[in-house]
This record gives sequence, structure tokens and C-alpha cells, in this order.
Amino acid sequence: MRMALGVSYNGQAYQGWQSQPSGNTVQDRLEAALERFATQPVHTLCAGRTDAGVHGLMQVAHFDTPLARTPFSWVRGTNTFLPPDIAVQWAHPVPDAFHARACATGRRYAYVLLQSSVRPSVDAGRVGWVFRPLDEAAMRAAVQHLLGEHDFSSFRAAGCQARTPVKTLRRIDISRRGPPEGSGTALHGVTPCYWRFEFEGDAFLHHMIRNIMGCIVAIGQGLQAPDWMRQVLAARSRDAAAPTFSPDGLYFLGPQYDPQWGLPAHAAAYDWLP
Amino acid sequence: MRMALGVSYNGQAYQGWQSQPSGNTVQDRLEAALERFATQPVHTLCAGRTDAGVHGLMQVAHFDTPLARTPFSWVRGTNTFLPPDIAVQWAHPVPDAFHARACATGRRYAYVLLQSSVRPSVDAGRVGWVFRPLDEAAMRAAVQHLLGEHDFSSFRAAGCQARTPVKTLRRIDISRRGPPEGSGTALHGVTPCYWRFEFEGDAFLHHMIRNIMGCIVAIGQGLQAPDWMRQVLAARSRDAAAPTFSPDGLYFLGPQYDPQWGLPAHAAAYDWLP
Repeated sequence: MRMALGVSYNGQAYQGWQSQPSGNTVQDRLEAALERFATQPVHTLCAGRTDAGVHGLMQVAHFDTPLARTPFSWVRGTNTFLPPDIAVQWAHPVPDAFHARACATGRRYAYVLLQSSVRPSVDAGRVGWVFRPLDEAAMRAAVQHLLGEHDFSSFRAAGCQARTPVKTLRRIDISRRGPPEGSGTALHGVTPCYWRFEFEGDAFLHHMIRNIMGCIVAIGQGLQAPDWMRQVLAARSRDAAAPTFSPDGLYFLGPQYDPQWGLPAHAAAYDWLP
Repeated sequence: MRMALGVSYNGQAYQGWQSQPSGNTVQDRLEAALERFATQPVHTLCAGRTDAGVHGLMQVAHFDTPLARTPFSWVRGTNTFLPPDIAVQWAHPVPDAFHARACATGRRYAYVLLQSSVRPSVDAGRVGWVFRPLDEAAMRAAVQHLLGEHDFSSFRAAGCQARTPVKTLRRIDISRRGPPEGSGTALHGVTPCYWRFEFEGDAFLHHMIRNIMGCIVAIGQGLQAPDWMRQVLAARSRDAAAPTFSPDGLYFLGPQYDPQWGLPAHAAAYDWLP
């Protein structure tokens, strides 16, 4: 029988999702916990592998098992054997035709950025950081160039295993959380606030969002004009773009599936993640 | 010359604020960093000591130093020597009459609670947890009994060093962040969301907020009626209240001071803390 799992994790302590010889990845910890619960080896396949330091709010993975257990006993039993920074959110039986990666029709990511003259502390490892105020209008203008189907080679890491660099970005939302600039709460000339960038697309190349974030931040800080994003995209060369931005603020919100599979909806509570 | 510092920290890794022989406290790390920057011992005094595992968003501490440095060089220099989960937010010269604890006219705390059938993961150590839905109206009714000047002995830890158990609670705000109950995003019968409880008072006894939180949660889960809070308060006995709630979700938002001291305002950005 095939089961699908929703999994959340704080990626700070791990070398990414994908199993490694070190054993220090989210997949390694999850499979070890599933094996202890099932008392037999379990191999999982996920919807979207995340890099070292990147977090997952609703990763989806599937596995095959001869065991008949209720969904909630898979959740509770596996969580007993997982470290505190990884948890199974739900388990759901699926037909053998379901495949966590191949059946995903879309994926959502969020990037959270602390704007402050002082580096992160309470939220170290959980947010990216800029120490200069960002220009919201300039960033909004820039990301318009990325929407739709494009060859995203300029934002693709060297080791990327995707078959094609052509992907479709459906939506990029930018929101600011905190007091507006000039409201008298500035520290050392910068008003501390959080920026949240949300990305939705069919699929993403390796490092694609972190590379896009590097360009958004360069434009937000006024180092480049909004139109530079169009030029970077058109160059179809990694050399054209900004350096890869930190993994700290990147959250995989989760994949999207056809309702036919009956999987639980995205856990919207995490949009309020403290 | 006397300097005041605003300090933020994630308390997960530390045995609280107050210096200990182990050296593993926020004060120990701060004083070690100040000493490295000042190249001489620095002793600090804070506005509100926090327990092991409790976080600080804008703790205030003062110290005396013969060194003349610009405020921002104290910030930048000290942060160089602090671990990633502690940061000085601002430094400000103050008259010798200023005392971080004695001059504080009020203090603010927030408690963040994850409501979910599954334990925290992405935010482990940073939020408290309840696995049953909370009744907002019942909690609101209960906390009304605590507002104003009262003898808070029922919520006072055994080792509390305060001179008097009589304190004034000026404000308790309760807010819910996430989709409403019944909106179709429930997992295992519970709609995941975050609750935020904000407390403002003149001063707080040791464990006072964690003990109040234990009672609020008991009432929110329907184990006790709202009027039970009044009875617990009137008993003036620690035995009357619920067990001390987890430190994980407790944040010291910071002290309040008379504007005469010219200290920076509370960093409101942290109300949006991701």
C-alpha cells in the first residue's frame, strides 16, 4: 500500500532533504523514524528536495509499505522517533499511481527577510538579512519580468539535475510586515521590518529562488534598476545574476496536487509562523 | 560613563539571563563580548531577568565604563563577539541616575502558543503547544479577573525574590493568527493556528506569566470555567494554580521607561516576528 506524508522541518541542523552518507539529512531522519515504527526499511520519495539550511512547512513524500496502520498512527508513531525539529503533519493512503514528485502540479516557496541595521538574533538561521531599507516599488517592478514561462538558466545552479531550464512562474507576492519607514522606530537609520516573498510555479531549478532573491535584493537596495531583472533573465547565463542568497530565510511551503488524490490542504496556519 | 543597551536573544541555548558558574547564560555571553570589545571587565544589570529557554526581544541592561566610544561602535563591536542568537540592538549614553531595573515603569511580555494536533517542529523551542482547540471567549473572560492591582502569590514561584507579591497587570491582549475553526484546514480534527497573549504590568513575579498561562490554557481547553481564575487569584497560594507552562513560547518584549531618558522605542517590527 502506498502512503503519502506531509512533513514539516526546521532545516538549520540538516544537510538538506536528500539522503547523504553522513545520515544528517531530513530524509535520513524521517526514514530512520519510519523504520523504527514499521520495524522494516522504508524508502521515501519527496515532492521537492530542499538544500542545507532550507526549511519545509509541508513537504510531501510517499512510500510503499505492506503494513496496515491508521493514518494517525503513522503520524503519532513516526513523530515519537523524530527529533524535535522534524514532524509528520499527516499521513494519507494513496493509489499506486500517486507519485509525490511527478504528480505535483505546482510548488510554493516563501522567503522571509529581516531588514535591520543589526543582524538576526532571535530568528538567526530562520530569516535572511539586509541592513539597508528595500524599495518595494522597485522590487515589484522587477519581479514582473519573471512571471510566465521562461528559460531560467540565469538562476540555475551548476549541478542542477532538471531536464529543462524552462519553467513557469505563476505568482510572486511581496509583503512587508512591520512599521512603515519614517514611523519613528528606526534604529541606526533603518526601520526594522520583515519582508515576505512568496513564489508559486510549476517547478523550480536548483538554487532558483535563492538566485532570484539575490537579484531582488540588489534591485531593492538600488544597486541595480528594476529592468536589470529582465536583462539577467534574457542572458540565460548564471554569470549574469547576483550571488546565491542565504538559505536561512527559505521555506518550502509545499507542493500542489489535483484534488482527486484527496490530500489535506496546505496548512495555512504557517502563513502566521512566529 | 553609564551606557544602556537594548539586547535581543533566542533563549533556547541558554540557562536564562542571570550569570551562572557554568557561564552559559545570556548575561555571561554579553559581558564576555563587552569585555573583548572594551578590553576590560564590564558588569551589566538588566531590566528583567529571564528564565532558561525564555527569549528576549528588547531586554535593556546598563553598565559603567570609562571608555568613550560612539553608540553604534558599541553595537557593532559587541555583536562581533556575540554568538548568532544574541545581538545588541542599540546603545545609548544615560545619566548615572539611570538604572535598567529600578527606572523601568512597566514591562511587556508575549506568549506564543501553537494550537495543533501535531507538536511544533519548524518552531520547536520558540512556541508553547496545545493539541486541543482553545475557547477564545472563555480565555478573555478569565483574564479580566487578573487586571489591576492584586496579590499574585498564587502565580509566584517558590524561589521568587520580589519584595512583594502585589503587582499591577495593566493589559492582557489575546489574538489568534491563522484560519478560523471550521474553515476546512483542520488536521486530525484541530485547525492549526497560533495564539498570542500579550501582558503589560509594572513588574512580574518569578514564573508569574508561565503560571498564568497554565491557568489560561486549562480554561481555554474547558478543563476549568473562566471564574476559576478569580478563585485561583483569591487563594493566594501556589497550590491553587495550574502547573508552570513551558518557557518555549515566552518572549520578554522589553521594559518601559520615562521619555526623559531618551531611549529608543520598542522595536515594533518584532510584533511580526516570523
